[in-house]
Parts: sequence; C-alpha cells; structure tokens
Amino acid sequence: MGLLGAIEAGGTKFVVAVADENYNVVERTAFPTLDGEKTLDQVIAFFDKFENIDAIGIAAFGPIDIVKGSQTYGYVLDTPKRGWSGYDFLGRMKAWRDIPFFWTTDVNGAGWAEFETGAAKDVQNMVYLTVGTGIGAGIVSNGHLLSGYGHPEAGHIFLQKHPEDKYAGHCPFHGDNCLEGLAAGPAIEERWGISAKEIPDEDIAWKIEAYYIAQAALDYTMILRPEKIILGGGVPHRDILFPLIRESFSEQMSDYLEVPDLDDYIVPVANGDNAGILGCFYLAKTLV
Amino acid sequence: MGLLGAIEAGGTKFVVAVADENYNVVERTAFPTLDGEKTLDQVIAFFDKFENIDAIGIAAFGPIDIVKGSQTYGYVLDTPKRGWSGYDFLGRMKAWRDIPFFWTTDVNGAGWAEFETGAAKDVQNMVYLTVGTGIGAGIVSNGHLLSGYGHPEAGHIFLQKHPEDKYAGHCPFHGDNCLEGLAAGPAIEERWGISAKEIPDEDIAWKIEAYYIAQAALDYTMILRPEKIILGGGVPHRDILFPLIRESFSEQMSDYLEVPDLDDYIVPVANGDNAGILGCFYLAKTLV
Ligand SMILES: Nc1ncnc2c1ncn2[C@@H]1O[C@H](COP(=O)(O)OP(=O)(O)O)[C@@H](O)[C@H]1O
Ligand SMILES: Nc1ncnc2c1ncn2[C@@H]1O[C@H](COP(=O)(O)OP(=O)(O)O)[C@@H](O)[C@H]1O
Ligand SMILES: [Zn+2]
Ligand SMILES: [Zn+2]
Repeated sequence: MGLLGAIEAGGTKFVVAVADENYNVVERTAFPTLDGEKTLDQVIAFFDKFENIDAIGIAAFGPIDIVKGSQTYGYVLDTPKRGWSGYDFLGRMKAWRDIPFFWTTDVNGAGWAEFETGAAKDVQNMVYLTVGTGIGAGIVSNGHLLSGYGHPEAGHIFLQKHPEDKYAGHCPFHGDNCLEGLAAGPAIEERWGISAKEIPDEDIAWKIEAYYIAQAALDYTMILRPEKIILGGGVPHRDILFPLIRESFSEQMSDYLEVPDLDDYIVPVANGDNAGILGCFYLAKTLV
Repeated sequence: MGLLGAIEAGGTKFVVAVADENYNVVERTAFPTLDGEKTLDQVIAFFDKFENIDAIGIAAFGPIDIVKGSQTYGYVLDTPKRGWSGYDFLGRMKAWRDIPFFWTTDVNGAGWAEFETGAAKDVQNMVYLTVGTGIGAGIVSNGHLLSGYGHPEAGHIFLQKHPEDKYAGHCPFHGDNCLEGLAAGPAIEERWGISAKEIPDEDIAWKIEAYYIAQAALDYTMILRPEKIILGGGVPHRDILFPLIRESFSEQMSDYLEVPDLDDYIVPVANGDNAGILGCFYLAKTLV
C-alpha cells in the first residue's frame, strides 16, 4: 500500500499531512488560510512531493456541497470568507491528480476520528459537537456519517433562553435564537466583555453556557438517540463545564428518557487537537 | 410466496390485516386496545386462521425497546397504559409462531409507508411527523429507519414559546418546554377550551400551532437535513396549517440554509389513514 493524505481545511489555518498505512505521519505542515486558489496552490505543492498517495481525506470548513450528484458537489458554498464562495475545492484537487478523495466537513473529519479510535470507538451512534468560534456537529448514525440534502448545521437549532441571560445573541441569521448565537466562544466573550479563557470557573457564565449545551444535547438525544455526545473545540477545554452540563441535562430531561450513564454519555474528545487530521486519514483509508 | 401480516398496535385501537405479496388485503379487522395479554389473544386468534404467513410487520405505540441485543428487545417499556409496561409483545408473537417479525414504532410504520410509496417515495432522507394525541416522528436517513440507543422521541424537543402564548403546556415531563406539551391535539384543546376541530381557520390558534411545528421542522432540518418533512395525524387535517407552517419556517430560518422548495418540503401524508397498515406490510416484505 502507498501513502494516505489528509487536508484539514480550517477557516484560519490549513493542516496537510501524509502518513503510511499504519497512520504514522511521514510529513505534516500548516499554513494560514488565504483565498481558495492560493491556498490550494500550497496544498498541491505539499502533496506534489509524494508520488505514491493512494487517497486523500479532506475535512473542510463549510458550508460545502457534499451531496453526490449535485452540480456543485465538491464546492465551497456561500461563505463570508473572501475568495472561497463557489470555489471548486474538490475539482481543483481532482484536476491535480486522479486519485480517490473523501470530501466532507471539518466536524465530520474530527467526529469520524472520535468514532474510529476516540471517545465513541465502542458505539455505532454518536454526536460530535464542536464549540469554538462556531458550533457544528458531525453525526454518526448506525456507523455512517449522517447527511441528507446537505450536511448537518446542528449549531443553529433554536433554544430557550436562560431566564437570567439578557444577551442579544451573535448569530447574524438568528440573533439569540440559536445555539451558536448564544453559546459559541464569541457569544461568551461579547456577553461578558472578557476573554472566555479568563472567566473564573465559579462564574455564572459557565452555568448559562452549560444550560445551552445541555439543552442542545437534549434535542440531539430526542431526535437521534445517540450512544455518546462528544464535545470538542476550544470552549470545552473548560473542564468544569462537563459536570455542569450533565446536571443541567438531567434537570431539563426530567426523567423522560433513558440515556446511558451521564458520565459516559456527555464526554470530552479523546483524540485532542489531533482529531481533524486523524479523521482525514481514516476517511482516506475507507477508499483504498 | 405466502401472505404478509400487519399489526398496527395503537394505544386506543389495534388494526390487524393480512395481504398477498402485491399488498392486496385478504382480511382486516380492528378492535379496542385492552391490556397486553388480552389484546394479543385477539391478535393471535386473527392470524391463527392463516397457515401461510411469511412475515409480520408490527408498528406499536411506545415507548418500546427496538434495540437488537437488548435484554428487553421486543418489550413495551414504561407506559402509563395499564397492562402494558414491561409486556413482552414480540416474545408472545414469536412463541405463537416462529416466523420473521419486523418490530418497530407506530410512527416508523406509517413513516415507512410514506417513504416507500407515499409523499417521500422519491427521496432517501425524510421526517414523518405525526401530530395527534401525541407527537412523534419516524425518520429515514440514507434509506434506513433511524434509531440508536432507542427510537426517536422527536416530539419532546424543546421549543421557544410563542410571544403571545400564555398556555402552561401539557407534557407531564416538560410542561410547556417541549413540542408535544405545546402543540399536540390535547394542548390545543386545553389552551383554547374547545375541540381543535371547532376552532375556525382564521383563529390565532393556528398561527401559534404553525409557529411551533415550523420551529420543530427547523430543528429537524438543522440536524438531519431531510429532503421532505411529512405531517400526519389528526391535527394536520387542518389544511390551512400548511401555508402557515411554511411561512413561519421561512421567517424563523431567515435564509440561513438552502432547503427544497417549501411547497414540496413540508407536505401532508399521501397514504392517508392507511399508512400504518401499509407500512407494516412493506416492512414485513423486507424480511422475506
Ligand atoms: N479553557 C478555556 N475555557 C473557556 N473557553 C476557552 C478555553 N480555551 C479556549 N476557549 C475558547 O474557545 C474559542 C476558540 O475555540 P477553537 O475551537 O479553538 O476555535 P475555532 O473554532 O476557530 O477552531 C475561543 O472563544 C476561546 O476563548
Ligand atoms: N380538522 C382538524 N383540525 C384540527 N384538529 C383536528 C382535526 N381533525 C382532528 N384533529 C385533532 O387531532 C387530534 C387527534 O389526532 P389523531 O392522530 O387522530 O389521534 P391519535 O394520535 O390518538 O391517533 C385531536 O386532538 C383532534 O382534535
Ligand atoms: Zn444561527
Ligand atoms: Zn415533553
């Protein structure tokens, strides 16, 4: 077998890597995200050095078109990010070299790593939720990445507001109606006027944050009945959130539904910040 | 090929039927739901008349255990309905005759009929939502009925309250927090103090009802990205709801996400009240 390739295509930085069939990294590099064309120039310059790549997994910031058969399959869709709207990301890669590519979202990439060898390695149904600059989810149902008319946008479900929260919300589409508008990193920072990292553990900020994440977890539970809900991204680096989320989940659920023991149900990522690249390798491997 | 059997096991009535391989009904009967043991006596007395049944589809009121490998697979779970909690429904049927049974929820049965030959026959991803005495959903993702740690309980997702709605809600677990507590038939009737059938089309009751169903449809859309959302059950017999729901959906979504044309996206059932039995036949057929 030849090598596997990985492209973790983030809105602020790209990470590219190649590994052998046992996922030992041969080379890896990162660079800031420019516009589509210029960024892909760098991606291709990196992979050009390797003759024997069998497949590449691409986990890209969205929204992207992942619907096979769609006219714009492989494109980046409407995005405020300059030089990316309507960019044919996958087309450019295919024009470069005719090998199999696994094309999916950044959260599906990291989520798949959790599913294969991370916190969800023993289950077939999971939600990987990342809470950072934005909020998004990668969902595995019955062992497969869930998608339909497009990929999930599970950060934009509507939530009830916490009774003590007066913040106007920061989602440009839904204000304070949706999870991302209320609970992403920038919402925390705008609401309290200080960096999320600097808010002390005892602050009510984390109770409110936990309430929103718990309510979202409740909705995912009702609809998807996952066996694990895994929290990634910068905000869940705050360990205190986990007990607070579990407590709030249990209160809001009010004994309606049987779920796994909460300490095993709502859990942090196991692959850490390596999940994105690892997921790309695993997804590439499914193609060879 | 022999015959196919169907059991539509509702909380108030049971419908049982047998059909030939082309779904022509050979015999069909209905009777009120008694306790588990007595009701199944009648079910078995009905099917006993047919020697050559190849498989039976069972679509049962819930909650039920549909997790293969679970200790209580095939059982009715905790329910306020007398004589049903912990009843081994599927076990009783298997003891009667050793043929294949498709064991699933009532909403999955009706939803599957919509998926096979109804409003969702041309898609692979759909939500069938029934709004009647309760609210529940059957979800098809990538051509398969979605389940995980259990079956979906999509009627109990949390919603934002309509600003003009003062009703306290009727979900025994979630009060006015969840969809069912706010928008099922009994909620409408308790809120307005009159039968839902008698509320005129122009009444604000339907605007509020549409707002809740639309908000739920939005959450299903964000998480599942279905190609169709199909509304069944008694309440959507009110035709005026459909334009109101589509309008509210569009307002709440606020152009965030591309969905199919709303007239094709949020639609009524195509199989009418026959969907439940039809779905059981189709599910039975998957086993032969
Ligand atoms: N220990 C922490 N406690 C709370 N918030 C944190 C912590 N570490 C990082 N964050 C927040 O996480 C957010 C960034 O998340 P991250 O997932 O790293 O970014 P991105 O989504 O851009 O990849 C920032 O708002 C930051 O304040
Ligand atoms: N035309 C109608 N307009 C509004 N509500 C209706 C209409 N027809 C039936 N309903 C309501 O639907 C509910 C019953 O739904 P149904 O699905 O038939 O019951 P179940 O869930 O018990 O099977 C009742 O609350 C009834 O008032
Ligand atoms: Zn939003
Ligand atoms: Zn409820």
